[in-house]
Amino acid sequence: MKLKNIAEILDCLLEGDGETEITGVASLETARKGDLVYISGSKHRPALDSSSASAAVIPEGEHYERIPVIRAAHPHLAFIRAVELFHETPRSQPGIHPLACVAGDARIGRDVSIEPLSYVGAGASIGDRTIIRALAAIYPGAEIGDDCVIHSHVAVREGCIVGDRVVLHNGVVVGADGFGYIRLEDGTHRKIPQMGRVVIEDDVEIGAGAAIDRAALDETRVRRGAKIDNLVQVAHNVDIGENAILVAQVGIAGSSSVGRNAILSGQVGVADHVRIGDNAIVAAKSGITKDVPDGAFVAGIPHQDIRVWRKMWVLLPQIPEIVKDLKQLKARLDAIEKG
Amino acid sequence: MKLKNIAEILDCLLEGDGETEITGVASLETARKGDLVYISGSKHRPALDSSSASAAVIPEGEHYERIPVIRAAHPHLAFIRAVELFHETPRSQPGIHPLACVAGDARIGRDVSIEPLSYVGAGASIGDRTIIRALAAIYPGAEIGDDCVIHSHVAVREGCIVGDRVVLHNGVVVGADGFGYIRLEDGTHRKIPQMGRVVIEDDVEIGAGAAIDRAALDETRVRRGAKIDNLVQVAHNVDIGENAILVAQVGIAGSSSVGRNAILSGQVGVADHVRIGDNAIVAAKSGITKDVPDGAFVAGIPHQDIRVWRKMWVLLPQIPEIVKDLKQLKARLDAIEKG
Amino acid sequence: MKLKNIAEILDCLLEGDGETEITGVASLETARKGDLVYISGSKHRPALDSSSASAAVIPEGEHYERIPVIRAAHPHLAFIRAVELFHETPRSQPGIHPLACVAGDARIGRDVSIEPLSYVGAGASIGDRTIIRALAAIYPGAEIGDDCVIHSHVAVREGCIVGDRVVLHNGVVVGADGFGYIRLEDGTHRKIPQMGRVVIEDDVEIGAGAAIDRAALDETRVRRGAKIDNLVQVAHNVDIGENAILVAQVGIAGSSSVGRNAILSGQVGVADHVRIGDNAIVAAKSGITKDVPDGAFVAGIPHQDIRVWRKMWVLLPQIPEIVKDLKQLKARLDAIEKG
Repeated sequence: MKLKNIAEILDCLLEGDGETEITGVASLETARKGDLVYISGSKHRPALDSSSASAAVIPEGEHYERIPVIRAAHPHLAFIRAVELFHETPRSQPGIHPLACVAGDARIGRDVSIEPLSYVGAGASIGDRTIIRALAAIYPGAEIGDDCVIHSHVAVREGCIVGDRVVLHNGVVVGADGFGYIRLEDGTHRKIPQMGRVVIEDDVEIGAGAAIDRAALDETRVRRGAKIDNLVQVAHNVDIGENAILVAQVGIAGSSSVGRNAILSGQVGVADHVRIGDNAIVAAKSGITKDVPDGAFVAGIPHQDIRVWRKMWVLLPQIPEIVKDLKQLKARLDAIEKG
Repeated sequence: MKLKNIAEILDCLLEGDGETEITGVASLETARKGDLVYISGSKHRPALDSSSASAAVIPEGEHYERIPVIRAAHPHLAFIRAVELFHETPRSQPGIHPLACVAGDARIGRDVSIEPLSYVGAGASIGDRTIIRALAAIYPGAEIGDDCVIHSHVAVREGCIVGDRVVLHNGVVVGADGFGYIRLEDGTHRKIPQMGRVVIEDDVEIGAGAAIDRAALDETRVRRGAKIDNLVQVAHNVDIGENAILVAQVGIAGSSSVGRNAILSGQVGVADHVRIGDNAIVAAKSGITKDVPDGAFVAGIPHQDIRVWRKMWVLLPQIPEIVKDLKQLKARLDAIEKG
Repeated sequence: MKLKNIAEILDCLLEGDGETEITGVASLETARKGDLVYISGSKHRPALDSSSASAAVIPEGEHYERIPVIRAAHPHLAFIRAVELFHETPRSQPGIHPLACVAGDARIGRDVSIEPLSYVGAGASIGDRTIIRALAAIYPGAEIGDDCVIHSHVAVREGCIVGDRVVLHNGVVVGADGFGYIRLEDGTHRKIPQMGRVVIEDDVEIGAGAAIDRAALDETRVRRGAKIDNLVQVAHNVDIGENAILVAQVGIAGSSSVGRNAILSGQVGVADHVRIGDNAIVAAKSGITKDVPDGAFVAGIPHQDIRVWRKMWVLLPQIPEIVKDLKQLKARLDAIEKG
């Protein structure tokens, strides 16, 4: 593909030889002749100078002479589109593989691909163009929307609902029982029936091994556009807001909610019945024990405003110093008081 | 179902119109006409006042007039039994699906259901009325008891033993190798063979994606009635006590033990060779580095008595203040000493 | 097997009756007549004294009279070799099970065992003597080396590469998409295509449920001899050094690297774009926010040198004391200043 064609598709300005042949995309470090790369700002210019790439996407205001460039208002975004020109995701062949096990009364949309050794239970439904990869399990009565990709070893449990354009990576579990028991007097635990469901709205992506539990009653909901990373735990009756981000290994206890556009960094834990506000940010490894206001940025176990937390953590290593100082002051006071 | 019939089944006192037709159960917030709800105490009365439910379970001592009520010593427990009246879990059809792969010498009990694409290895045994859902793997020589539910993508590894009435949710791994190596002089790791097994006793429930490792020698044991939440890690040779509760994402290192009725809250980590006492409680995200006495309530990394921990955390944000105070005291002392 | 034969195979000195019949290996606590046990040092002698074992491996310098012993420079290592004499791992029958689904153009090595209900996609390759257990998924174009064991419910995604003698325990996911998005002005997230791959080098072992994400571009790499425990998260473009150890539930964010022989203890979190040095040790539950030098030993959230961290944590519970002391000093100063 010629650089000028790429510039045209990206609708971006070209500077330099548009006839340059581009055969792939790469990072600055690994690019070879024929590769297109990108830099998001001037701090990456030295890396670009020493790169073997044949062309680069650079920010709109900038200039570069050594190799031809494409200028973009948002270089990373433009580069992503270029990446997609070179790496079209291979479409699975539509059809139901003879080694798949699909219930007779399951509703299967148009151009669906159901790979070998996958299971679609009684009364389940699969939307148009959705891909069920090998060894996935769609339990009876579950509903999957259009244009989804359900990877190997995903389980969507009975009665759960998955919207359109949802990607569930390997091993995701949607709708296992919430963790609810009542302790009886003899110390044993009586299970609280988990009769609710999970609803995953459109455009959600969930990472490998994440678990979204079904509600006791009502529903657990992951709203439109939310993105959930690997090995995240979402308990029963939780509500994840639109476009929220849950980074890997986050855990959210029962009946809590996460606001729209909120970001929970890696390994954050959230207690039950807590509300995290819209646009809130929670630093990695924090433990959220109370409501977090809209737009707040918090950190720590238990969490605090990030500014309080930072001041505190700068000074904490001085504790030995503080203890020593106190002792000295006491001694000096003793001396004064003794006269 | 008429309310008076429900009251009769629950063996509870009815107040109001027993002829009220009940068609389902629901939470206070989502209840509609025909639904039965419950409140556990007077703080939920306002929610009940504005609920559309047709009837409610309320605590024994209380009164309510707007809608008919059932009075129960333990309203939640009574409600749970009502929930179960309306939501009987669908029984899988007994039988071995022709697309299941069951070894010829596996022992299969009565009324067992083995769903399609599940695997039962040589010499394994499956107890009466147990359900092996689609795509589960029972390795050679594993033994599953009676009345269990083994969900899709569960693996019970070679020689491991699962008791009666055990529920393993999707993706649970029972008996993968413990993580044990000896570092050799050249820096490489020599694997310590993991030849022990896992024993899961009766009435245990284990959540999605949890991993219970086999012992190096001897066994890893999860005792009767323990409940383990999603994505929990139990290492080799660990012993989990009767009715213990491990909340989501807890991790327990090798050879440690958890006492009976102990509760480990979410994301707790436990070092190796540590004993957590009976009835102990560990607050979320704590790191247990030493033995925890029976009945203790601890928190923090490293853990401390919860009272010490609470006092500490109330004061920690004052550290900047403390540092400032110290400086001022010093200055005042300097002034006094100079005369 | 006679004790003298075991001593011979282990190339160790025997003391006592070499004709002693050894029928198994066990831990000190559970050993019965016929069992061989080991002690690594004199602190285990009392346990040996009360053990029912018929023989023991003991350290080279030591003596023991009650039962015959084998003396070894490294008793645990010698014992491991004895364990292996008694527990040969059962070899799967080579061959492709008729209920496996293997693409016509997949390259299958010699003496490979592909168990029932496993899936090998188009263009994938499986090395000599490798075992693909039931219900594993090898995606199209993935390459598995020689002498590997791929357990049930493992997924090796498209184009990923696994070396020789690699063991992937149940539910491991190699090559799910990295977690990368650009937030657009309307708050939605544009996915950054994850077009790279994962390379798992030789002699790596990965525990149940761990997830190793593919790179956006280039690759995520787990180097030779690294050992990864259960439920670990390794993000896109991460580089795990030779013989590194990642204990259970560790999470490593994008583009970070872990040095050779480094040890990350359980539940450690590592921020993105951070370098952990060779031979570094990170204490359990720490949060790594900046580079860690070679050979450092760090702890805490955020991490600090372990010595600083220890001093700090010994004193932190004294904070209430410190606050009280400060108040008293102030009062005394006030009194002095007032005259």
